[in-house]
Amino acid sequence: MSNSLKIAVAGLGTVGTGTLKILSEHGDLLERRCGRKLEVTAVSARKMNKSRGVSLDGFDFFEDAAEMAAEANCDVVVELIGGSEGIAKKTVESAIGASRHVVTANKALIANHGTQLASKAEEAGITLAFEAAVAGGIPIIKALREGLAANGMKSIYGILNGTCNYILSRMREEGLEFQAALEDAQRLGCAEADPSFDIDGVDAAHKLAILSSLAFGRQIDFKNIHVEGIRQISKIDIHLAEELGYRIKLLGIASENENGIEQRVHPCLIPHAASIAGVEGVFNAIVAEGDFVDTFMMEGRGAGEGPTASAVCADIVDIARSFNLPTFGIPADELKAANTISMSLHRGAYYIRLMVVDQPGIFADVAAILRDNQVSMESILQHGRLPGEAVTVVMTLHETEESCASRVIETLANLNGVIGKPVMIRIENL
Amino acid sequence: MSNSLKIAVAGLGTVGTGTLKILSEHGDLLERRCGRKLEVTAVSARKMNKSRGVSLDGFDFFEDAAEMAAEANCDVVVELIGGSEGIAKKTVESAIGASRHVVTANKALIANHGTQLASKAEEAGITLAFEAAVAGGIPIIKALREGLAANGMKSIYGILNGTCNYILSRMREEGLEFQAALEDAQRLGCAEADPSFDIDGVDAAHKLAILSSLAFGRQIDFKNIHVEGIRQISKIDIHLAEELGYRIKLLGIASENENGIEQRVHPCLIPHAASIAGVEGVFNAIVAEGDFVDTFMMEGRGAGEGPTASAVCADIVDIARSFNLPTFGIPADELKAANTISMSLHRGAYYIRLMVVDQPGIFADVAAILRDNQVSMESILQHGRLPGEAVTVVMTLHETEESCASRVIETLANLNGVIGKPVMIRIENL
Repeated sequence: MSNSLKIAVAGLGTVGTGTLKILSEHGDLLERRCGRKLEVTAVSARKMNKSRGVSLDGFDFFEDAAEMAAEANCDVVVELIGGSEGIAKKTVESAIGASRHVVTANKALIANHGTQLASKAEEAGITLAFEAAVAGGIPIIKALREGLAANGMKSIYGILNGTCNYILSRMREEGLEFQAALEDAQRLGCAEADPSFDIDGVDAAHKLAILSSLAFGRQIDFKNIHVEGIRQISKIDIHLAEELGYRIKLLGIASENENGIEQRVHPCLIPHAASIAGVEGVFNAIVAEGDFVDTFMMEGRGAGEGPTASAVCADIVDIARSFNLPTFGIPADELKAANTISMSLHRGAYYIRLMVVDQPGIFADVAAILRDNQVSMESILQHGRLPGEAVTVVMTLHETEESCASRVIETLANLNGVIGKPVMIRIENL
Repeated sequence: MSNSLKIAVAGLGTVGTGTLKILSEHGDLLERRCGRKLEVTAVSARKMNKSRGVSLDGFDFFEDAAEMAAEANCDVVVELIGGSEGIAKKTVESAIGASRHVVTANKALIANHGTQLASKAEEAGITLAFEAAVAGGIPIIKALREGLAANGMKSIYGILNGTCNYILSRMREEGLEFQAALEDAQRLGCAEADPSFDIDGVDAAHKLAILSSLAFGRQIDFKNIHVEGIRQISKIDIHLAEELGYRIKLLGIASENENGIEQRVHPCLIPHAASIAGVEGVFNAIVAEGDFVDTFMMEGRGAGEGPTASAVCADIVDIARSFNLPTFGIPADELKAANTISMSLHRGAYYIRLMVVDQPGIFADVAAILRDNQVSMESILQHGRLPGEAVTVVMTLHETEESCASRVIETLANLNGVIGKPVMIRIENL
């Protein structure tokens, strides 16, 4: 164990730079913690000479990351390029092919190719680690794979995207509409110039795919996740939800039953009393429910140089300490099929907002539609009634099957007297 | 790795029984996760035949746990007897002497003898693991030793005792006095018949000693922790704190500076907005601040059969997966001296409550005392003034040295017009 662990870093953006900083600033500390030196030997980046606030002196420089992965003098390849295909994938495959351990922060890659890459890594006898791929500042991968390993997991859910959480927090706190909050987030660097990956829920779905694979011992099944983002959330819904005792959050939720797993990402109304209701701004939070440990919650920064690099280095530390586990906690060829259950079979409660013309009989019509679909109402609120004006009506429905709720909404949309499209948001009574 | 891991369990109380349940109910799952079978071979308990809802068939039974640790057919000894001395300590030493791995839930043992036991374990080349010793349902030991291993830790603090948190929650929610809430907790099984270990802060201090050793790479120093419990908290303080925007919690807090470490357990006023302010009832929560990861929080059940046994089994899983680390993350002989800093040097903010006779000049006297001690006031509240009655006065002091605050309180106590002993509670602006 006294020989150094040699590290090649592919990609010197924010996280790559942070990783080099930790390895350099905490060299002595890490050596004590690992019982051996952690030594960066090679790096790869598009530009060698860019100023990054960290020295690259003494590292072999490769223009081609995949070539570095195969040929550098290293034990571990750290892939921080990003993207599910192309050079990132090639780099990881090249590292596995050369029997080098892989540490990656690439959620898209793992969410799309995790099962196959895990098989290859296990055949090669190397570690494929990705703590940084999900909620950087929260060591949730380790918690699921090790800390909670004695549990059968019932569910895992959380706030998995800091950009969305920031936008929803600002909308609520300052009464902003979505677009204004988004622009603010972009100005402050909390959202990308093209924010669709975050605000349409894709990023959260990548993370959820990874978490549910780990939690339930199943193959990754990103493509069957039900994904909705937060573009359609308006400040009136946030306001009305608060009035009903709920806060709106974008959650990723996975649970298992005898038919398979539910995997879904969408905005939710959650009760104020839920532990994660108070998680605001760019913070992420994840709740795991195990059959022995009960409910367990972790909260921390989901992104950023320091937190993500901290997760990358934790994986490197595990490798340096000779801790080699199957990628998803059990061997890849023992992972069960995902059997992701269709969203139409989901059972839950629903918030529905309508604009209706204030005319006699309209409530009787609404009530009839609920009755005909065997859906029962929990509460109803009516707002903004001035004579002759349209009225905002908010209903919450008791637990029912998603297909019933959808049918109700479709029928309501076509009802004479209903203006525009009804808004539906799922309620999670966490 | 295909041979089974043989386990001997010493102590079949709540946690021991839970451990046997997990190992039996999740036998297949754990075998898949570990790549080998986990097999209980021996148990030790005061009574063999007590009904525990779990079968002991096929296990070798030992009356003497220390004898079992040395002589049973096993690779791991699980010590769930409890207590810092006597048979628990003997059992652990006997296991180490026989080169068996040790898993323990015994915080008193680790807080009092952790450094020495770690040395012995490392000499013997075995693992000494104690995830269950601190906040059972929260895998904080693993998070500190591994998940956050890339960080220099700045501080670690949290709600470490569920009994105290439950009592404080009930006092606030229902306006109970301490004694009534304690009795309620006892009736519900959330407090022991002799509750002093919990309510006087000793249990929290045991856990804090372990956390700060891990976080700062220092020798365990339980005996120098400043410890205060919650007996002196009254409902009026909880009420006044709320009015000032604070909640009262018993916290364990450790932080490091150039002189050493601060380690303290005492009731605190924490702002409503702090993430752990909303952690109520028997739940525990721990916040760690690292130099790269920033702030990270974990919340879960601190005690109980399932959560604690889950932690015990997580340690067993690590051992089965051949993950052998130094007890405190770095070799015991490299742990620095604790250098616990005297509480009189602590700097913080303070809440002070006085009963004063409503007489001319009393506020001028109070103000003079603050001035003479160079302490400045942040806010003052006066309550319950009826003509001729004593008045409750609450002040919050800006950050000052503990020794100054103590001098202020002593002087106030002796002031003509002040009735009874002033109450002081520290404010933590988390």
